[in-house]
Amino acid sequence: MDDSIKQLAHQLVEKISRAVRKESKQNFYKLGKTVGLGADGTPTSYIDQIAEDVALKLLQKAKAPVNLLSEEIGFVDFHGDYVFVLDPVDGTRNASRGIPFYSVSLAVGTSHIHDVTYGIVKNIPTGDVFSAEKHHGAFFNTTPIRVCDVPSTHIVSSIALGKNYTTTAGALSKKHNVRSFGAASLEMCMVALGGLDYYYVGRDVMRVVDIAASTLIVREAGGVVKNRRGEDLDMPFSLTEHTSVLAACSEHLATQLLSKA
Amino acid sequence: MDDSIKQLAHQLVEKISRAVRKESKQNFYKLGKTVGLGADGTPTSYIDQIAEDVALKLLQKAKAPVNLLSEEIGFVDFHGDYVFVLDPVDGTRNASRGIPFYSVSLAVGTSHIHDVTYGIVKNIPTGDVFSAEKHHGAFFNTTPIRVCDVPSTHIVSSIALGKNYTTTAGALSKKHNVRSFGAASLEMCMVALGGLDYYYVGRDVMRVVDIAASTLIVREAGGVVKNRRGEDLDMPFSLTEHTSVLAACSEHLATQLLSKA
Repeated sequence: MDDSIKQLAHQLVEKISRAVRKESKQNFYKLGKTVGLGADGTPTSYIDQIAEDVALKLLQKAKAPVNLLSEEIGFVDFHGDYVFVLDPVDGTRNASRGIPFYSVSLAVGTSHIHDVTYGIVKNIPTGDVFSAEKHHGAFFNTTPIRVCDVPSTHIVSSIALGKNYTTTAGALSKKHNVRSFGAASLEMCMVALGGLDYYYVGRDVMRVVDIAASTLIVREAGGVVKNRRGEDLDMPFSLTEHTSVLAACSEHLATQLLSKA
Repeated sequence: MDDSIKQLAHQLVEKISRAVRKESKQNFYKLGKTVGLGADGTPTSYIDQIAEDVALKLLQKAKAPVNLLSEEIGFVDFHGDYVFVLDPVDGTRNASRGIPFYSVSLAVGTSHIHDVTYGIVKNIPTGDVFSAEKHHGAFFNTTPIRVCDVPSTHIVSSIALGKNYTTTAGALSKKHNVRSFGAASLEMCMVALGGLDYYYVGRDVMRVVDIAASTLIVREAGGVVKNRRGEDLDMPFSLTEHTSVLAACSEHLATQLLSKA
């Protein structure tokens, strides 16, 4: 992929991150306020709108061959060869309540998760950046990363619970060291980094904008990304499709976890 | 309380935080390595030892009227009037695996949680500081904080699961928006900030070093801190006692949650 496209992607992520950080300091109690309905049918919060405005302005100005698919605004056709698949704020609820675990997620591809060639996830509160290029590995800032060794002595997982509770999630939540952070892209990057052994969402609630970048990052770090039926995860660049997710440090662990389901 | 004691407390927290941050960049894969057994009978990790060394050196040099109770080293008598109740790294497992959610926790009191007059919890990865002085309110950096409004439209909780799973925790994990971050002092500060409506640990696993500071911070922010039997939480400065914890934004919510147990 052209270096100028990668640079544009990083520039976009940095600009959004800066805008969100600024708002989180200045307008703390406004961040989660609903300002309308997004293209995916869910309410748009103030913070999502701020972030998308930044994205649109930059892409209009850049005149690069890049279209945009974003959570709230939907698909914007700039007659490009690539699509930027963007979640301007993943973990909006955390962001809007001051919980320091949320991110910007941006994937570059053409039509499906399987053809994503570049992915960036930036942890906004800490400033750390995860990235991956297809066939070139995954990085935490500038350091190459790998999923954790198998078998891990003390398994640490992150599991979607509450509204996204399923029987399998419930069974898994009784074992090991369980976390649940509420920002899928960043939780998947924790698998890529070796921080988590696996991340599980049992319900069909994840959209392509949430997971397109982090799926590449996990795979390039040596991990696997599946749906709850154990199929390698793929989905089109569309806001109407939803999926379950199992990101794990190994095929073996993924099989083990799903066979107990 | 004497301002010089408060200053010493903040100085100690900053020094530990800097040492841990430095190690986390330089010796990432060494942080969680076990280096012996602590005063509480659990294994001491490399990162805990680094942090306690910093604490001991500073207190020996300061010659202040302050004793130390810390997770690994136990009680150190400097013939002081106050006790610094320290968890040098709360969320050691997160820290040792690169998950950016861990803290330094320091409370200043004499013998029990009820007589704690000052508390500091520092989020090491973001650098944010929570503090409270008895009868003078709670702060996020320099901003006064309050627990969230009651009733919250969308309840967000954090619940200890996995090895600390209980029937009540399991029942609560099916509702609302559930998180689990793995660092008690910081999760309790999220209640104080209004980020979480409540935080629940159903098993008797929490020690005074984990929660002494954050209990004051939650109470000064207008929240309540109980054990699982609904009693206002108190415990002596001793590493042999363990408790359950419910930190909530209101008495009403706490009663409601425990009545369903």
